[in-house]
Parts: sequence; C-alpha cells; structure tokens
Amino acid sequence: VSGEFDRIAEIRRRAARRSSSVVLGIGDDAALLRPAPGCDTAISTDLIVEGVHFNLDWASAELIGHKALAVSVSDMAAMGARPFAALFSIALPAALGDEFQRRLYAGIFALAGRFAIQIVGGDSSSSPGPVFVDSVLVGEVERGRALRRSGARPGDDLWVSGTLGSSAWGLELLRGGARLETSAGSDHDAILTHLAPEPRVALGRALAERRLAAAAIDLSDGLSSDVRHLCEESHVGVVIEAAALPTHRPLEAALHGGEQFELLFASRPAVASDVAELTDVLGLSLTRIGRFGGPQDRVLLDNDGTTSPLSAKGWDHFASR
Amino acid sequence: VSGEFDRIAEIRRRAARRSSSVVLGIGDDAALLRPAPGCDTAISTDLIVEGVHFNLDWASAELIGHKALAVSVSDMAAMGARPFAALFSIALPAALGDEFQRRLYAGIFALAGRFAIQIVGGDSSSSPGPVFVDSVLVGEVERGRALRRSGARPGDDLWVSGTLGSSAWGLELLRGGARLETSAGSDHDAILTHLAPEPRVALGRALAERRLAAAAIDLSDGLSSDVRHLCEESHVGVVIEAAALPTHRPLEAALHGGEQFELLFASRPAVASDVAELTDVLGLSLTRIGRFGGPQDRVLLDNDGTTSPLSAKGWDHFASR
Repeated sequence: VSGEFDRIAEIRRRAARRSSSVVLGIGDDAALLRPAPGCDTAISTDLIVEGVHFNLDWASAELIGHKALAVSVSDMAAMGARPFAALFSIALPAALGDEFQRRLYAGIFALAGRFAIQIVGGDSSSSPGPVFVDSVLVGEVERGRALRRSGARPGDDLWVSGTLGSSAWGLELLRGGARLETSAGSDHDAILTHLAPEPRVALGRALAERRLAAAAIDLSDGLSSDVRHLCEESHVGVVIEAAALPTHRPLEAALHGGEQFELLFASRPAVASDVAELTDVLGLSLTRIGRFGGPQDRVLLDNDGTTSPLSAKGWDHFASR
Repeated sequence: VSGEFDRIAEIRRRAARRSSSVVLGIGDDAALLRPAPGCDTAISTDLIVEGVHFNLDWASAELIGHKALAVSVSDMAAMGARPFAALFSIALPAALGDEFQRRLYAGIFALAGRFAIQIVGGDSSSSPGPVFVDSVLVGEVERGRALRRSGARPGDDLWVSGTLGSSAWGLELLRGGARLETSAGSDHDAILTHLAPEPRVALGRALAERRLAAAAIDLSDGLSSDVRHLCEESHVGVVIEAAALPTHRPLEAALHGGEQFELLFASRPAVASDVAELTDVLGLSLTRIGRFGGPQDRVLLDNDGTTSPLSAKGWDHFASR
C-alpha cells in the first residue's frame, strides 16, 4: 500500500521527484515506474531486524536508515544497475515514538539524495517486538549488460574492490564497547564501515557500461561465502591468493567477515589493464585476488604456495554468534 | 538480496517461470524484469505483522501466506495492473521451524499460481519477536491506463464491487471463538473473507482496458477511510447512500470495516450501463453507492434523506482495538 504513507505527510513531502523514471510516486495504491528505453528493471529486497542485523545500543536511527538503504543499493551495484526508486516497509515499537521514525527517514533521505533515488512507497506498522526494516530497491540497466553471477569462466581473474575485513573488525570493536562517536583513526573507520557502508554503484555501472565484468556479486555474507555463489552459478572453481587480499585485518576477518559491501567480480584477463585503470577513474582500489579454474565449484586458498579448500563460514551477523 | 534464497532450494525450484515479463528470477543479487511493450511498471509493498494484522491462534501458515500476497495483489487490482512478479521478505521466530515456512510458502505459491505471478526474490531472517511478512508486488499496466485515485469529478458515480462488512464480521466471529474449520454457512464465508480475501484483479483490468473508471482504490482501511482518499486526491466531495450499500451486516461494519479488498471506483454516468454489464462478464456484483459532488473533500452519508458527515473511523486491525 503506497497510500499508507498518506498518513505521513512529511515523508510524502520529502519524497521529492528525483528520477525521470518515476511516473507516479507516493500517494496511490502503487507507484508507477518507466525505466529508460532499452533498459531492464532490476529489483531486490533486503530485510534488517533489530537484534539480528543491528543493535540500538550502538546504531542511531539515522545510521539504521542509512544501512537499510545502503545494503539494497549494493545489490543494484552488484547487478551493474542504476538505482532510481525505493520503497520501505517499517515496523516500529510504539515506545520508540515518532521522533525515531523521523530520524530513521532522515538517514534514508540523506543517502537516497546522494544517489538520486526517489522514495516511491512503502508500508508501516506498529511492532509488538523489534524494529523491522525492509528495503526494496528498483534500478535500471541496459538490456544484456546486467552483471549476473553466472558468467565467470576458467582463466578469468577474480577482482575485489576496496579493502576486506574492516566491517567485521568494526563489529568486534562495537562488541568490545567502542562507539562511533568516541573512536578515532582506523578504529573509527572500521566502525563506520560496519554502521554506514558505502555501496559501490559507480563501480558497478562502470563495469556494466564498459562490459568489463563477466560476473559479479556484492560481499554481504563474506568473501568465502560469496565467492562460492559466483562459482556455483558459473559452474567453475577458483583459487584465491591469500597474500593478495587487500586487508589490514586478520586473515580470518578478510576471508569470512561479512557486510563489507565491496564488489567481487570476474573479468577476462584481456581486460585486466582496463579494470586496473578504473581505480584512478573512481578513486577506489581494485585488486586481483585470484583466478577462476580448477575443479568445478571448488574454492581453494593459496597460502604461500600451500593450497587448501576454503570453507564458507556463514556470516550470521552478530546476534546468532 | 535475491540470492538469500540460494539457501532455500525448494523455494527456488518451486518459483518456476510463470511470466514472460521476468528476464531473471531468484538466484542473483537482483531480479530482472521487462514489462510488456507500452506498459508502465506498478509496484507496491504490504507489511503484515503477527499480533497486529494476524494471529497464529486462528490463521494457519498457509492462510498467512495467502493473505500476505492477496493484500498486495489487491493494490495491483486497484491500479488496473496485471500482477506478474512478487518478492517476499520474511522474519520468523526460530521456534516455528522450517515446516511453518514451508507451509507459509505453500499458501503463497497456491495464490501466485492462480494469477501467474512469479516469485522472483526476497529476503529472510530470524525474528526475536513476531512473524513479519513483507510482500512486494510488481505489475504492468498500459501507459496512461492506470487507475489512479485522483481522477474523480463532480457528477461521477461511486461504485463498489462485491459486498461490504463481511471481513469485519468474520473478525468479530474469530474474536468470539469461532474458527474457520468449525464454522458453516454465512459465518464460514465471513471468516473466509477475513482470512483469505480474493483480490479483484479481473475487475481492475477490465476497468483499465475499457477505460470505465476515472479513479479507483481498494478497500483496505474501510469504506469511510478509503473513499476519503479518493476525495482528497481528486479534490471532490461525495454523497454515499446508506440504503444502497451491498451488505448483510450492520451498517457500521459496512461503513468502517476494513480488509474487505473490494474495489471502490468512480465512473462517468455515461458509462454506467457498461459498468453494470461487467457484473455478468466477471460474475461479480457491482453496486452504485453514491455520487461525487458537494463540498470539496467532504464525505456525506445520506441515510433515508438525512444527510450527515461521515467521519473516517480508522481500521487499526484487531490488536490495537
């Protein structure tokens, strides 16, 4: 029910027209979208639940709003799509009050504005339990250009953007009592990576537009889990070089730490220099960390010349550990 | 994260290809959609929460799945759109187990199959509290044909499909201890209307294709609330004739009872006979219950010649009453 938002005049007023691909925004039974000619529509949802994915002790309402949107924008980046519209279904305990909702939306609108994403609908409810935020993202991508998980081939390079393991490190710091407001230096950066991840939309778009990636995924569950998705969907194996991993954290955090929201992608070796050039264009480091091949669906780790199977340690967020 | 479903092989297997407007379904970072040429994409979300919108004492997992989907399919009907894809974000307490999730999806798939709706993604989480189900529906509607809330004009007829007040009546029966399995006759029908509403997709499509409606909304909050949305968005008033309301229940239930999911729409008087003919075509009663006009945004009730303002009594589902 897009119209549920009629009750929330402020949200409707702030959900200003931002995208030419939106025909009708908040205020009717549904929103109407019309992606650019020649584009497919990408759609994805991400659910975050208090006590499972975040904690009110260390995440402000604004940061929760930011992260809810960032996580689903990251799905658009992983598809090479340009995000343009979002809907939010939110259940809040009455005790948190209207101010919490206002601040949650402030976090959403701040990030949405940066990516020209228009909020076009959603639903709201009271919650007899935890905070619940479902983020629905819609993007557009030129037909045939979407970055699927299934295109990697033996011989392709495995690339990753940014650094690995800092979100997991930030979470460890938060668990140990550190807080964003009172931290500094690399600790502050790690906590910020965990609480306010930056989706790699510009990278995803560049890879799609220049046809530089054969397959891609975003790192939500962690390298060891997500690389397995690429291998399974592409029916190939991969060998990861431990020494190449871009991280200042323990190897375990780099391999298994989740919620990093970097892009992991496969590229043909012939375009390696074109991929490397994107680092300067985007101001974002890109690192070759392995090569596809070997036994089908097998993920191997090469650690100083010793190769062993890399098992996927599931990232179950913090509550279930 | 469409890919979250990788964990749920059965769901992916059952989410068979049903729609030619789906390019890529479950299993990647996002689904890819391509509505029919000349169509806009309609999108809407509906959130239902245990203890707010439903109760495990009287709704089975299958019925919860049915209702979650039915409610958002009804939004598509109200826009005149043909639903073709859905995503579900679901948080379940661990205590309910995998069997509950399997049955919830059985309810979803049964209804989705009837409307040729393909499940193309979603997300899942554990819940430290109640069951949460967010249903995201995507439909397609020919450009310029969508049934908005804003097109009613003074002099238009106000129509409603089906009957009014039976869902509210069914809820009263459930509260009083009645159950679907042990009820009969009109009590059974009322409970079924509440637990397993039937979205009016064929009516919405007929109104859009034949250009018979100037404005439309579905009755989720109740007649007195939803007619107000039509008036406010269309900047008109309306007079409802109490004697014309199609109901076998108390007037209060017909006026204010929510979750009936019939369509309420405005039509020019010139097409009244065309609208009336749809009753036979669709096997669904359509009743003229009022006329737009009078003071702007004012909703009046004509009860045996005595006209009085009809206030919107919010339908807060059962938990908050």
